Amino acid sequence: MGFAVTLTMKRQSFALAHVLCTSLSVSVAPLPAQEFHETLTDTSTNTWLEDFSIDSGVGKTGDVAWSIRKYTLRGGKQAGVDVVEINNGKLRFTVVPTRGMNVHKLYCGDVRLGWNSPVTELVNPLFINPADRGGLGWLDGFNEWMTRCGYEFAGHPGEDDGKMLSLHGKASNLPASKVEVFLRNNRLHVRGRVEEKMFKFVNLEMVTDISTEIGSTSVRFDDTLTNRGSNPQEFEIIYHTNYGEPLLEKGSRFLAPTRSVTPFDERAVEELKDYRVYYAPTKGYGETVYCMELNAGADGRTTVMLQNADATRGVAMSYNVDSLPFFTLWKNTDVGEKGYVTGLEPGSGYPYNRSVERERGRVKKIAPGQARKFQVEVDVLMDAAAVKKTAAGIAGIQGSKKTRVNEQPEG
Amino acid sequence: MGFAVTLTMKRQSFALAHVLCTSLSVSVAPLPAQEFHETLTDTSTNTWLEDFSIDSGVGKTGDVAWSIRKYTLRGGKQAGVDVVEINNGKLRFTVVPTRGMNVHKLYCGDVRLGWNSPVTELVNPLFINPADRGGLGWLDGFNEWMTRCGYEFAGHPGEDDGKMLSLHGKASNLPASKVEVFLRNNRLHVRGRVEEKMFKFVNLEMVTDISTEIGSTSVRFDDTLTNRGSNPQEFEIIYHTNYGEPLLEKGSRFLAPTRSVTPFDERAVEELKDYRVYYAPTKGYGETVYCMELNAGADGRTTVMLQNADATRGVAMSYNVDSLPFFTLWKNTDVGEKGYVTGLEPGSGYPYNRSVERERGRVKKIAPGQARKFQVEVDVLMDAAAVKKTAAGIAGIQGSKKTRVNEQPEG
Amino acid sequence: MGFAVTLTMKRQSFALAHVLCTSLSVSVAPLPAQEFHETLTDTSTNTWLEDFSIDSGVGKTGDVAWSIRKYTLRGGKQAGVDVVEINNGKLRFTVVPTRGMNVHKLYCGDVRLGWNSPVTELVNPLFINPADRGGLGWLDGFNEWMTRCGYEFAGHPGEDDGKMLSLHGKASNLPASKVEVFLRNNRLHVRGRVEEKMFKFVNLEMVTDISTEIGSTSVRFDDTLTNRGSNPQEFEIIYHTNYGEPLLEKGSRFLAPTRSVTPFDERAVEELKDYRVYYAPTKGYGETVYCMELNAGADGRTTVMLQNADATRGVAMSYNVDSLPFFTLWKNTDVGEKGYVTGLEPGSGYPYNRSVERERGRVKKIAPGQARKFQVEVDVLMDAAAVKKTAAGIAGIQGSKKTRVNEQPEG
Repeated sequence: MGFAVTLTMKRQSFALAHVLCTSLSVSVAPLPAQEFHETLTDTSTNTWLEDFSIDSGVGKTGDVAWSIRKYTLRGGKQAGVDVVEINNGKLRFTVVPTRGMNVHKLYCGDVRLGWNSPVTELVNPLFINPADRGGLGWLDGFNEWMTRCGYEFAGHPGEDDGKMLSLHGKASNLPASKVEVFLRNNRLHVRGRVEEKMFKFVNLEMVTDISTEIGSTSVRFDDTLTNRGSNPQEFEIIYHTNYGEPLLEKGSRFLAPTRSVTPFDERAVEELKDYRVYYAPTKGYGETVYCMELNAGADGRTTVMLQNADATRGVAMSYNVDSLPFFTLWKNTDVGEKGYVTGLEPGSGYPYNRSVERERGRVKKIAPGQARKFQVEVDVLMDAAAVKKTAAGIAGIQGSKKTRVNEQPEG
Repeated sequence: MGFAVTLTMKRQSFALAHVLCTSLSVSVAPLPAQEFHETLTDTSTNTWLEDFSIDSGVGKTGDVAWSIRKYTLRGGKQAGVDVVEINNGKLRFTVVPTRGMNVHKLYCGDVRLGWNSPVTELVNPLFINPADRGGLGWLDGFNEWMTRCGYEFAGHPGEDDGKMLSLHGKASNLPASKVEVFLRNNRLHVRGRVEEKMFKFVNLEMVTDISTEIGSTSVRFDDTLTNRGSNPQEFEIIYHTNYGEPLLEKGSRFLAPTRSVTPFDERAVEELKDYRVYYAPTKGYGETVYCMELNAGADGRTTVMLQNADATRGVAMSYNVDSLPFFTLWKNTDVGEKGYVTGLEPGSGYPYNRSVERERGRVKKIAPGQARKFQVEVDVLMDAAAVKKTAAGIAGIQGSKKTRVNEQPEG
Repeated sequence: MGFAVTLTMKRQSFALAHVLCTSLSVSVAPLPAQEFHETLTDTSTNTWLEDFSIDSGVGKTGDVAWSIRKYTLRGGKQAGVDVVEINNGKLRFTVVPTRGMNVHKLYCGDVRLGWNSPVTELVNPLFINPADRGGLGWLDGFNEWMTRCGYEFAGHPGEDDGKMLSLHGKASNLPASKVEVFLRNNRLHVRGRVEEKMFKFVNLEMVTDISTEIGSTSVRFDDTLTNRGSNPQEFEIIYHTNYGEPLLEKGSRFLAPTRSVTPFDERAVEELKDYRVYYAPTKGYGETVYCMELNAGADGRTTVMLQNADATRGVAMSYNVDSLPFFTLWKNTDVGEKGYVTGLEPGSGYPYNRSVERERGRVKKIAPGQARKFQVEVDVLMDAAAVKKTAAGIAGIQGSKKTRVNEQPEG
């Protein structure tokens, strides 16, 4: 496929011997898709583009009008936050490199993946003190669709090995040290490297490649977590994806090929029988959380789905269960600042404190120089047929296998 | 009133589909005063003006030369701090949107409202760790005339309900999410919205309107604190206004129509008899604090005054006692980094830890969707006549009512 | 000496009445060396140069080609960090004003002063939470050659007087409030003022003058720590200089005129006999630390040296023992993120927690208005002759004095 590319950027790049600042606005001739590649940030070369945009130059042609736009937020608690907007012509989403390569919101037709947090700004991690409010400071910036949890630890705050761990680790509050955008094989990519490094303690690198095929309704996360350290490194990872309206409403349902389901705590026990269905916004609901093991198909992959009440819209998430063996369903159907939101959360474990997770054998290690790969694909389901097809796929994975329903929490 | 307006600005405004950066320097024809309105910051539209200035264009005419100037501080711990300077032709002051709409210093003739802190930079909240030094980190940035305390909590650090509260809350260390400047009815306004929001916990919005009539010697705070959450929300608010030289000196006096006065602690008991007079800077003085309830006039308003030794200069603060029923007098007449400063502090309560304040019935709640309004007017008194007149007004409110002097602290 | 000066800068300077932004690129006629002086940052006048460079304009002449270049890092955790590169024509190093005037790395020929930390970015202090991981958050940014420790406290984290002290104090995480570069008497200078100030508690100013003679192989730190407060002020200071390859290798040696040596802890006892020699990188080594008192020459100065295995390269550090009476040798010859690095650390004390240091009489006070001066000179030794000469100098200071070797740690 060839197309005209319109590109504008304002570059800041520094090396020992020179300082270069340019602002470009270029419209180039049609190019093969795979030739486009731009580095937005690279701290090793002190490269940082304040503004950048590229698009398919479409309008006059019959091609799909895609675009990528990078800019920096200003003012308030969002000052200095870099965002990258990707529009594949069909869906669009916003990656936030400054917040650990989280994805803020995804729009596709009348569907939004995301939710309404009382926190509306994309909060610069500099404004977050994770230790605040007994280790819950992470919630000061919690409002994205895809929020990263990890990587040295995730889950609930509390003491582990004599040190206080804060909620869900540092992943969301680490700015990416390298950010690239490129187009290859008809897919738009945003790739970022996030470093969780501390002398004596940890040397983890997460490289996330977020990509989408032009004109498609899906986005894929290809993530690689590497232990650059010299010792085996514990890790935890949770893909904390959060959904409010329009997919979440009274009568919405959660579907998954479920091997086992266990209430997270006593509160969840009360509503165990309804764990797959959602209530209307309910004042004082709080939250119920269910811990699951999922079945996989012959290819090792599983699929979960959230569908709206009349099964005409939905979202499917597919991933390998060997790398993400545990799944957490967070049902927070409250109101206002308490949130009407549900989390579909594939993970290396459940969101108990790491000390609990370790005790229960869910904290794994990565050998020195080794890596773990995670691939999560998200499909927006735009009509009843797509929802039905996904449900059939989930049923196919489950087959005749029974779901073990544990009536009580672990431990 | 018509006047020539000179306006310069450098705008950064972003929307999904466009990036706009402009730097303007405009001199427009005389306009009716009420037509001027500019948004300096609005995170919801990613608007932020790095520089902005407007003035009356006066010099050639007989009009009053007023001006507003916005710029951003650079370097050291003040890097990135936005300030807005307002000059009404008679007095001038500096609002600090990045520090919760605090007001740094106010100058009027030879009077300064403000004090000399060892901290001389306007410290970016990012450099403040409120938890530092046992919850006293707030003091790392304490140097303004009008420092905001609140809004979920204020007062002394310490545990409340199992969580550590830090000194005087977050209000001063929250950057405004929206900032506007405008002129209406011959008054210059700076209006800012500060958000204290956290998923699950709090959704408070403070909109402060700081205004001054052109050519006058007074400034007014019209503040509205709204609970955007879905549950009743506790709040605390203290207007921590701080005065050093020239109003504070040996023999300066504090006047107020006082219903009751109570020493804050044992230290304050020692000097109870002298609570209304000030000493010279005294090494090792530390601080004495007095808790007061004030009488109000028929309009529900009270007035307090600080006057210099020979009663030729002063400052008066007037406000509604129904919204700010408690007043704290902080006398910190020490030297050097210990500070020679007094605080005149109308509040919703006293600066004890919230756990103490709640126990004593001074922590109120705002219903969901409801708001509390606070109006504080500050007048600079430029001569003996103005001081005398204010003293007479205070005496008038007090009338024949007796002041109850409690010899011991509460509790 | 006269030379052509090439100067470029982008200035941001603000005053009450005007805003001035200029970008200059100037090539001036030969000037006497002492006439060059530029202020890069001064928060008291809101001066900050985003970019600045000056050089000797040499190439055509036989003069030494020196240069100074200031720029700001962008992206990742280094966003907003100012750096000043000094090249004296023979050696070059990078001062980091935003990180307390630390020096990142120094290069001279094939010698590097510095080490390989897993942390590769120059981390903005805003990303550091010193309280993290039980007070070890300082390690999140630890990667420089010359890292400042102090000044109210230094050393190990832990409680002192009811407050938690974090590792090595605040010095490295305080941005300089004033930064100047100048040339005087054939020496290039970077001078910075770092303020450690907090209302009620502390008012310390460190002015560091880092200078190097054009064409030389040495750099000198002339530091003045002033107590601007009104009360005697405790202080601690450690010059934490860190060396990895190429000076550190199997068989490298540490030399010093040693009055006494004491293992820091039980781990150090094990290898006491080898305290002066270094091992190859050793997995699981951890660290051994030795506390020393050094002898001085008639001029009150002492010299320590780290030399490579075949004594052909080295570094010498010379300083006054009256101002820095204690020396710590930190041997951390581990691998990977655990570090292969040794610290040569002249100090006012040892790196125990301040509570321990005070008990053992090593925490001194500065009287109000008084200052302490510290002068540390660092020479890069580029050949066997220089190493030999330095060793002879050290032997000369030691003379026939015996070294007292304590077999057990203090206390």
